[in-house]
Amino acid sequence: MVDHHAHGVLPADPGRAEFEGLLTESDRAVPPWMTQFDSPLGFAVRRWCAPVLGLAPHAAPEEYLAVRGTLGWNEVTRRMLDASGVGCVLLETGLDSGLGVAEFAGLAGRPVHEVVRLEAVLEEVAESGVSAAELPSRFREALASRSAVGLKSIIAYRYGFDFDPEPPGEAEVVRAAGAWLRQGATRVSDPVLLRFALWAGVERGLPIQLHTAYGDPDLELHRCDPLLLTRFIKNVEPRGVDLLLLHCYPFHRNAAYLAQVFPHVHFDVGLAINHTGARSAAVIAESLELAPFAKALYSSDAWGLPELHHLGARLWRSGMSRALAHHVESGDWSFDDAVRVARMIGRHNAERVYRLR
Amino acid sequence: MVDHHAHGVLPADPGRAEFEGLLTESDRAVPPWMTQFDSPLGFAVRRWCAPVLGLAPHAAPEEYLAVRGTLGWNEVTRRMLDASGVGCVLLETGLDSGLGVAEFAGLAGRPVHEVVRLEAVLEEVAESGVSAAELPSRFREALASRSAVGLKSIIAYRYGFDFDPEPPGEAEVVRAAGAWLRQGATRVSDPVLLRFALWAGVERGLPIQLHTAYGDPDLELHRCDPLLLTRFIKNVEPRGVDLLLLHCYPFHRNAAYLAQVFPHVHFDVGLAINHTGARSAAVIAESLELAPFAKALYSSDAWGLPELHHLGARLWRSGMSRALAHHVESGDWSFDDAVRVARMIGRHNAERVYRLR
Amino acid sequence: MVDHHAHGVLPADPGRAEFEGLLTESDRAVPPWMTQFDSPLGFAVRRWCAPVLGLAPHAAPEEYLAVRGTLGWNEVTRRMLDASGVGCVLLETGLDSGLGVAEFAGLAGRPVHEVVRLEAVLEEVAESGVSAAELPSRFREALASRSAVGLKSIIAYRYGFDFDPEPPGEAEVVRAAGAWLRQGATRVSDPVLLRFALWAGVERGLPIQLHTAYGDPDLELHRCDPLLLTRFIKNVEPRGVDLLLLHCYPFHRNAAYLAQVFPHVHFDVGLAINHTGARSAAVIAESLELAPFAKALYSSDAWGLPELHHLGARLWRSGMSRALAHHVESGDWSFDDAVRVARMIGRHNAERVYRLR
Repeated sequence: MVDHHAHGVLPADPGRAEFEGLLTESDRAVPPWMTQFDSPLGFAVRRWCAPVLGLAPHAAPEEYLAVRGTLGWNEVTRRMLDASGVGCVLLETGLDSGLGVAEFAGLAGRPVHEVVRLEAVLEEVAESGVSAAELPSRFREALASRSAVGLKSIIAYRYGFDFDPEPPGEAEVVRAAGAWLRQGATRVSDPVLLRFALWAGVERGLPIQLHTAYGDPDLELHRCDPLLLTRFIKNVEPRGVDLLLLHCYPFHRNAAYLAQVFPHVHFDVGLAINHTGARSAAVIAESLELAPFAKALYSSDAWGLPELHHLGARLWRSGMSRALAHHVESGDWSFDDAVRVARMIGRHNAERVYRLR
Repeated sequence: MVDHHAHGVLPADPGRAEFEGLLTESDRAVPPWMTQFDSPLGFAVRRWCAPVLGLAPHAAPEEYLAVRGTLGWNEVTRRMLDASGVGCVLLETGLDSGLGVAEFAGLAGRPVHEVVRLEAVLEEVAESGVSAAELPSRFREALASRSAVGLKSIIAYRYGFDFDPEPPGEAEVVRAAGAWLRQGATRVSDPVLLRFALWAGVERGLPIQLHTAYGDPDLELHRCDPLLLTRFIKNVEPRGVDLLLLHCYPFHRNAAYLAQVFPHVHFDVGLAINHTGARSAAVIAESLELAPFAKALYSSDAWGLPELHHLGARLWRSGMSRALAHHVESGDWSFDDAVRVARMIGRHNAERVYRLR
Repeated sequence: MVDHHAHGVLPADPGRAEFEGLLTESDRAVPPWMTQFDSPLGFAVRRWCAPVLGLAPHAAPEEYLAVRGTLGWNEVTRRMLDASGVGCVLLETGLDSGLGVAEFAGLAGRPVHEVVRLEAVLEEVAESGVSAAELPSRFREALASRSAVGLKSIIAYRYGFDFDPEPPGEAEVVRAAGAWLRQGATRVSDPVLLRFALWAGVERGLPIQLHTAYGDPDLELHRCDPLLLTRFIKNVEPRGVDLLLLHCYPFHRNAAYLAQVFPHVHFDVGLAINHTGARSAAVIAESLELAPFAKALYSSDAWGLPELHHLGARLWRSGMSRALAHHVESGDWSFDDAVRVARMIGRHNAERVYRLR
């Protein structure tokens, strides 16, 4: 399997509060009257990750965390990545902390490729000291200098998908860059700069991943419906650049529509797989309704906890198995076709899009 | 079980047309070429309520209504509430007719608490004779004087969720109140007054229920997507007031997202449970995809017919049983966890939010 | 069964590229690295249409196309229409090519009625030579002269559902007609003219089908959510004209809501049935959640390939059977009710709406 979008793991043993915080997209403190272990994802961790640590399925959170602490993050990470059965990981490195590509590859013992976050590069360029006039060319150079298999945009988080679908003019970009630099050039959220970064990414020519839909409360979910990208998608089409809509829940049917009608659009239901736990089989089945099988991919969007690398793959395999077995048992699909589709989505489509072979 | 949002029953024996009218959210006359009994809800009434009247399951509508008339609304109400297995009802009293809290509690023979509808109180204050300048303070006093476990907003019906998420200024409210009073101060639909009532509710400090999504054709459904509340939700967050998104169908996945990321947001799929009948199991299963289990509640949103009190609880129990049994049989969940989650959603979460114990 | 919305078949033997192009709503060339046979619809064709040509289920695409070519489109069409079990087809004739009503009826050997596309009539009137001032009356005359059981609007494709819900004034229409005629009066996309055609259709008094939601990339899917029609639907209500929302995926739950609350609104999940293949059973089950059973219809939206006429009916029957059998086995529905509902949706509702008997 290829996990075409994941992040590193925290090189530390998280306490209970931190661990629970990594089981939700909420960035708020867990209220004292509840635990994030009581969630579809929490139950799935206890079910599928406890045995990897030598515990019985459904182990209690306290027990799980105690054994996890004794083994240490390093050993836990190795075990989870081994158990995942993932043969190749595309690591998106735009989050602040977490293991880098080299360290992650060392621990994982399997090929790891980098996906570069556009907004992170733009913020690095700004931090490095640059004038507004230089910023566009310096950003393009920085992007060109990065060896990566793909790019990632988080315009969904920083603005929403209801942005002007045309590339901004250079003068407009320089003006926006000036205002941003004067304000300290920290977190980029100006739509002109975000669109500039996105279109510079298109010029770079690598496949572009877009965070789509469900995610932390930075975003406004109704402004992240992938259908709002329709005109942008049409504008990108003549450039010959692949777009990959990530996660997409609860708008995955909309994403599958876009993947059917636009040859350069692909999608996955990563993130939602982990977070919907035992219900992920239903979400995966829905994701197989409209899109040609060549246009769906697998990702975990794991971040922080190696459990999420393992669990994403585990739930995807069982969800796919259930969906496909259902079609084979009903006589709708042949067994051979089912196996072929599982391989396309689990591996071959990613190899083709990112030119991994 | 706690039914955290229901209305009273009509203290009368409805004729067939009136009975059918209470089986749909449509306020239009039932066309002569159809019957509302031929609907998911109509089939569910015949299946699950007929036996409570001593009839066979799937009894014909004529037979059902004949026996119902013979027993009388009083006896039917007692039977249905007994059969429901609901131990505590939160009654929203803002609808014009129907049994009041005391009478309902008498018939029900179990604890009943009141939920006060903000717009109904505002309209009462206006009717009682008040100047525009006095209206804000008089409304706050009226609200303070009501003993209730929660408040309810129907801004979805009266305007939509695309309202300005900031509290209105006092001068603005007085101006809007003046215009409203001059026009006779009947049905309040001015967005400034609706927002005023909502924010006064926030100041009152009780949990606030918001009618969300599916309902009668007064509302425009696309303007009642709970995601449109995102900024309002963020503005309420520092006030420490719980928000409860009611019903939410067909946007229940969106509601569950909000319940995951915001600690003060809760939700249910009441109303949809009754109206989707045999399909409610699927809707309930979808509602369990993203939210922590501490954030989902049960309600019937029953109104007019005691059948709906019984049916909501009956369908919720069987839908939950099917969803949870599925996860237990597949090995995803332990049996003990499944029972615990059913108790949280069916009872304990409501007890915590409304401080019922 | 009545198929209340379908198109003709191409009177020719398509090559592989053309055949694959008819298996998708995409109008783009199929990329060389994929085949449209690898899709839910492609698999369904191999499963359910291959036996009609004397091949084993799941026959390879090459084998399927070879036998199909040998038999010829005429024989294939007859076989597929026979196998479909559809007793009556409503043919929408607004697409350029394809067999006309008489030829189709001849091949089909069963009753065929015409549904007239409003925009096609408007474009014909313009082509025939007309002044802007004459266009409104000439269009109304052309519409009156057409013998049809229903009308069809593709305003979803040409503009979207976010149009002004009031009828345009005559002067406004003449002005828009003038501009359109000066530009050559080809494809009509001016919203004033589209609204004019739609309201002239309402005046004509026949049931009006509206393409809704999923379709080719001409449209912007988020602007084709049927909920955006709410005010238009309310404005049409006093005219006593039935509206039929076609296809509706992925907004079929929204369409079912409209069908519940407005007596003149009906809907189907045609098109989505074929395109979701083995998953169509799930889509059909969702479409049965909210609407009264008198308000749902069956259509294939088949176009070009007679396979789609057969497959739509085949998948609808098996999807309905699964959904209804599920409810009967669980005890929620009686067997007799299930059979009755299948007949209503498969046939009787269409007979009533289009006055076919």
